Amino acid sequence: MTEEEREEQIEEEREKDIAEIKALEISHKWKAIADKLKEMHEMNAAELLSGLSPESMLVVFRALPKDFAADIFANLEATEQSVILNTATGKEVGALFEELMVDEAVDALEELPANMVSRLLANVSQETRSLINKFLAYPEDSVGSIMTAEVMGLKQQMTVRAAIEQIRRTGSEQEQIYACYVMDASRHLEGAVSLKDIIMAKDDTLIGDIMREDVISITTSRDREEAAELLSKYDLISLPVVDAENRLVGIVTVDDVIDVIEEENTEDALKGAAITPYDKPYLETSVFEIARHRIVWLVLLMFSSIFSGMVITSSQEIFSTIPLLIAFIPMLTNAAGNAGSQSSATIIRSFATHEVEGADWFKVLIKEMFVGIIAGFALALCNFVRLMLQYKNLNVALAVSIAVWITVIIAKVLGCILPFLARAAKADPALMASPIITTIMDTLSLVVYIFATKLILL
Amino acid sequence: MTEEEREEQIEEEREKDIAEIKALEISHKWKAIADKLKEMHEMNAAELLSGLSPESMLVVFRALPKDFAADIFANLEATEQSVILNTATGKEVGALFEELMVDEAVDALEELPANMVSRLLANVSQETRSLINKFLAYPEDSVGSIMTAEVMGLKQQMTVRAAIEQIRRTGSEQEQIYACYVMDASRHLEGAVSLKDIIMAKDDTLIGDIMREDVISITTSRDREEAAELLSKYDLISLPVVDAENRLVGIVTVDDVIDVIEEENTEDALKGAAITPYDKPYLETSVFEIARHRIVWLVLLMFSSIFSGMVITSSQEIFSTIPLLIAFIPMLTNAAGNAGSQSSATIIRSFATHEVEGADWFKVLIKEMFVGIIAGFALALCNFVRLMLQYKNLNVALAVSIAVWITVIIAKVLGCILPFLARAAKADPALMASPIITTIMDTLSLVVYIFATKLILL
Repeated sequence: MTEEEREEQIEEEREKDIAEIKALEISHKWKAIADKLKEMHEMNAAELLSGLSPESMLVVFRALPKDFAADIFANLEATEQSVILNTATGKEVGALFEELMVDEAVDALEELPANMVSRLLANVSQETRSLINKFLAYPEDSVGSIMTAEVMGLKQQMTVRAAIEQIRRTGSEQEQIYACYVMDASRHLEGAVSLKDIIMAKDDTLIGDIMREDVISITTSRDREEAAELLSKYDLISLPVVDAENRLVGIVTVDDVIDVIEEENTEDALKGAAITPYDKPYLETSVFEIARHRIVWLVLLMFSSIFSGMVITSSQEIFSTIPLLIAFIPMLTNAAGNAGSQSSATIIRSFATHEVEGADWFKVLIKEMFVGIIAGFALALCNFVRLMLQYKNLNVALAVSIAVWITVIIAKVLGCILPFLARAAKADPALMASPIITTIMDTLSLVVYIFATKLILL
Repeated sequence: MTEEEREEQIEEEREKDIAEIKALEISHKWKAIADKLKEMHEMNAAELLSGLSPESMLVVFRALPKDFAADIFANLEATEQSVILNTATGKEVGALFEELMVDEAVDALEELPANMVSRLLANVSQETRSLINKFLAYPEDSVGSIMTAEVMGLKQQMTVRAAIEQIRRTGSEQEQIYACYVMDASRHLEGAVSLKDIIMAKDDTLIGDIMREDVISITTSRDREEAAELLSKYDLISLPVVDAENRLVGIVTVDDVIDVIEEENTEDALKGAAITPYDKPYLETSVFEIARHRIVWLVLLMFSSIFSGMVITSSQEIFSTIPLLIAFIPMLTNAAGNAGSQSSATIIRSFATHEVEGADWFKVLIKEMFVGIIAGFALALCNFVRLMLQYKNLNVALAVSIAVWITVIIAKVLGCILPFLARAAKADPALMASPIITTIMDTLSLVVYIFATKLILL
């Protein structure tokens, strides 16, 4: 059997599962569906559950064991979570929320209207409610908004035996038990110890002797992107989150951070295409909402085109004298925009991955200038040959090609400098990507063009 | 103390460390530097070590305990790794490579010339050598190229007690011990069991009874992006990699996958800006290399501008009759390009995050058409008001605005359809982003413009 055949076989089994569950749904065998889902990975079970009608979904969901139901619930999309929360009884909601990790509960609640949130929270214990409310209050995009409260906390003076005993007793309530954190009586973070180090140590060893004191941590109010960077840089499974007094308040886990990285990348991709960011999936966003997030920049950029129009009207005589020159306007503005957005996209991405920092601006400027000289020359040369072959007019070919060369150099330099300026002004460099640099280069390339053609042709 | 003050304090301590190590370097206190590094996180230690001169670096590196030295080595940049490999003795290289995980060794070797690789591999054991050679042979971007061989393998008939005993004995040789895999005598993957489940189970329980049989796995030849997607979708710490016969050959860990995600995002960002992808950091890439990766598309896109030039020359009479119309060319082509790249960037990103799949093309097409009608109307209206105020010429304002409206609709539809076509043709949709759609829209917007103006103004 080849690797492809194996993959196909897995795909077929998956389709068989879907068909089987559909058949069970039609014959109302809810218990059988629940039994089948229980054997699966909670992610796959959640996908199959979402395939059912809302009514069937709720019946099957009720037939599942409580802890597994909570695992599935955390993996459902917001729409399906609402269906369940809307139809479940108060007691069911209470039981569900006690099983969920705080961050999962908060994620589900964030999508709901405020009055429904308080109605739902009326069903959970006082302790859970105040914890959830505290977490709901962290600002969007902060570390607090993605952390969870369930942490395996140990004490320095514990033996390894006692630690393992505690982990066995309380492990099922924790988000993860592989990174444990050592705190004093007032929850000050004193150290970190991995379950690996605990398991490998002798039974009588003290936790204080095997913990790592040089703990990488972050505070609640930092940007969630910074948590992602720390976790990725130090290859951590979880990152402890502390308050200003170094008291442990939660952890951010690696799986949450992968989602953050993907969301931030989506945001940058949209900003780079002149779209104000939104976080709903494309297919679930209405036409009006999509249009709204795109019109702002389209209108702004259109009005900035007034300048390029002014450059043209102020030098109309050159175009009436040599009408052929009009034909090269799109080529020139296009080349200028492409050259500029190549530079800005490179620098913006290098900022995001921390390959380039603010202090590197001069090095980058010189580099881009030389890239502009080389790439611009290559482009000008190709253009010169083409124009000579097509129009056999040396002066026109020369004027246009020189304009291309100078324009590309300017585009490269501006394209790399604008993201640095944005960063220095604490604005978002991602907005400097292709649309803005393209619009600026439209005007500048026309100025260069008219200057060069006047000099050589008039 | 506020959170900011705490962050500053941490920053200050870090700067003190750097200064202290610099001072120790000047007074040649190598042992003292090594002692200081030993107390740190290996990532921070690696950063401080790279700050030393190559000669000092090697002396300090030699003074470190073997296993910690290997951890630091894996966290060094390729350039510093080469310095160490070039100057270390054969015996030292051998010892280092036995300590490294296979994926770390392979990463270090991939940056070196082939003759040096064989020279270095002469110093390691036969077993390690053949393993490294096997891993070096996996194609770039395949799952095989990012996996590592060290896996905690268990047997079904083992008790929990025996499993913990084995983990304690062999855990230090493994990449990680939190996800263990259950195999038969010929290494066929039968199940997965987390260290959490092992710890929580009773001592006499059989591993076969607590393992999960529904294991998510992947084969060696798949794209590494697919491994990243599986790990992220199922929130795994590690993903087992199997061959065509379902025999376990290695694992991909979550920290490797975060790097893959970032690299793929960089690649998409560069492609979207018409740069052929390269994987060296920007500051370490030469001017010529950077220029080379940018010229290809600049030239190609410049030559595609021949079409827009043709459209203009073929309708020169309209521009000589009403020269004002030249002034709106950059505005129109720019709006068309922006509208189109908004759509293409949205769809390309939705492909990458699997929010949109190939089958959704018709839904997306209709959606974008309506977005185009709304956004185009808003743009046309703004434009109409501006032209009426500025030029007080109803017919010109009408002709230009109608051209804007139609152009935006076409741009939206084409901008979303091109990525689908690329995908259907098994080409890379990321290449369809702003530069290509912008160039196509240059020509199409001019055709619409000339058609509309001729109809209304001549």
